Amino acid sequence: MSSAFVPPTFPDIVAASRRIAGAALRTPLLANERVDAMLGGRLLIKAETLQLTGSFKFRGAYNFLSRLGDDGRRAGVVGWSSGNHAQGLAEAARLLGVKATIVMPADAPAIKVANTRASGAEVVLYDRVNDSREEIGGGIARRTGATVVPPYDHPWIMEGQGTVGLEIVAQAAERGLAVDAVAAPCSGGGLVAGIATAVHGLSPRTEAWSAEPGGFDDLARSLASGRRERNAALSGSFCDALLAPTPGEMTFTAAQAHLKGGLSASDAEVGEAMEVAFREYKLVVEPGGAVALACALAGRLPVKGRTVAVVCSGGNVDHATFAAALGGARRGAV
Amino acid sequence: MSSAFVPPTFPDIVAASRRIAGAALRTPLLANERVDAMLGGRLLIKAETLQLTGSFKFRGAYNFLSRLGDDGRRAGVVGWSSGNHAQGLAEAARLLGVKATIVMPADAPAIKVANTRASGAEVVLYDRVNDSREEIGGGIARRTGATVVPPYDHPWIMEGQGTVGLEIVAQAAERGLAVDAVAAPCSGGGLVAGIATAVHGLSPRTEAWSAEPGGFDDLARSLASGRRERNAALSGSFCDALLAPTPGEMTFTAAQAHLKGGLSASDAEVGEAMEVAFREYKLVVEPGGAVALACALAGRLPVKGRTVAVVCSGGNVDHATFAAALGGARRGAV
Repeated sequence: MSSAFVPPTFPDIVAASRRIAGAALRTPLLANERVDAMLGGRLLIKAETLQLTGSFKFRGAYNFLSRLGDDGRRAGVVGWSSGNHAQGLAEAARLLGVKATIVMPADAPAIKVANTRASGAEVVLYDRVNDSREEIGGGIARRTGATVVPPYDHPWIMEGQGTVGLEIVAQAAERGLAVDAVAAPCSGGGLVAGIATAVHGLSPRTEAWSAEPGGFDDLARSLASGRRERNAALSGSFCDALLAPTPGEMTFTAAQAHLKGGLSASDAEVGEAMEVAFREYKLVVEPGGAVALACALAGRLPVKGRTVAVVCSGGNVDHATFAAALGGARRGAV
Repeated sequence: MSSAFVPPTFPDIVAASRRIAGAALRTPLLANERVDAMLGGRLLIKAETLQLTGSFKFRGAYNFLSRLGDDGRRAGVVGWSSGNHAQGLAEAARLLGVKATIVMPADAPAIKVANTRASGAEVVLYDRVNDSREEIGGGIARRTGATVVPPYDHPWIMEGQGTVGLEIVAQAAERGLAVDAVAAPCSGGGLVAGIATAVHGLSPRTEAWSAEPGGFDDLARSLASGRRERNAALSGSFCDALLAPTPGEMTFTAAQAHLKGGLSASDAEVGEAMEVAFREYKLVVEPGGAVALACALAGRLPVKGRTVAVVCSGGNVDHATFAAALGGARRGAV
């Protein structure tokens, strides 16, 4: 899908933070002395796993629907998502009294499909490899007059996700800390580009990094080459939430302006990060949500002598996947 | 151990909240639409699992050490605990530069012993059935001049734990909600008595309830009989953090003044609550920390038509115990 959107500015993100303030949770910024001692620096975790619907996606969706006029709200919305945008959009629509139709891949985790339906949204399933979710969603929009709510490549979405960055800098400052670097998981790039824009409005010297699964590091390669690269595979990662094939047009523009670079972590490193999140921070983090933490723990994003904030972006993980990550990481650590 | 302490008052708890403000985390108050729909009311979770050292115990310990004079801090402190008070006290001592010796049962979860040592405390192990931790700890205090920091039956501890109650009422009010009832896990009663005192200072009509493991419901029976009852067993509960044999003298006085009654939950109900906390709230909760949530989910603390806040008080649980709770509860639910 082509878009000609201009990325949101810092004041746009500040305005979004006021728009979502009554509805979204100001999630905590957590620290752990043992991990800090191990890394030789200060690691702060922004726990968006605790956000409504279990991921940061609620912020962008609620901001988008809040910006729709009365006519737009009456006509309803349609979106596509591997799961977290679906849940965030469905719950935002429920809270604001808007009808939502969500196009989801048939292989999305069952819990994400069930939760989307539980918020009252209509779910349409598609085949991730053979179908185009954009075509299916676009068709629904044309037939019903509903507004398409894209998962990332839209300024109203990106400015909502960027509010995470405002909170990170503010919550660190409340403890007398300045953030040297921030990293966030990346699929289409709305979260990390929004955060980087927000952080640089408050703290221009702070480094911003994206974190992607190994083999699905399209943004890292795009930042290196200067053009939007594509992933070779469309499925098969442990990180089911981070499978966008290429950066968004608008989010890539913002990422080029604000990111220092792109990092990636292997599935094994992500599993170990999930175990550390459980053991030390008492957080339930889904694979895709743990990628930035994995990059910090693996030393790819240096923490030594610095204050580094990473976003744990979602916690919608199946029981078996979570238990396996705990068991596998333990065996690996012994 | 006999004590002649007078329970802290509401202003004492407000003063404690200022004392710990720079160090303790204002943990989030979480809500979940699906659980609320299932229960027909509004359930709020105070996530003390995210507190420093993974439980509320840090609050009381930090408040206690902050109230010690310079001579007391130089002489060090000694405490006894099945694990969470140990970790909270050790970390508070580390932050305030105080030497801590902690007496812990030999069957405490390995993670709690390891974490206590990692904060720099000296750990002395004892046999839960044959030894008296009070005698061992008291002996250390006499030999070294260290101050005993009791796990619950002291006003400085109880006023620290009570700050949880101030936050619950304030955070609910920030969302326009008045709390009809509050419940918290109970071992010696410092947390629940402190919370009840705090809540009644802000909202006299709010019901306060204790939550204990079945078979270890000494406070519930004590409230019913009007005198301090003892548990038949000293070990053997799923809830390793809630094994105090009888309510504290001071905490029982406060509980009689402020609690509507005592509730309890079975081990199976606690395991199911741990699974719900994982699935819906993305929280890692240890068995003892999930007892109040279990009482609400089991209908023993009615949520229908009301706003009810429960404290999830700790998240220090071994991998295998947590994975078993997820698996067991899932099988039970199918």
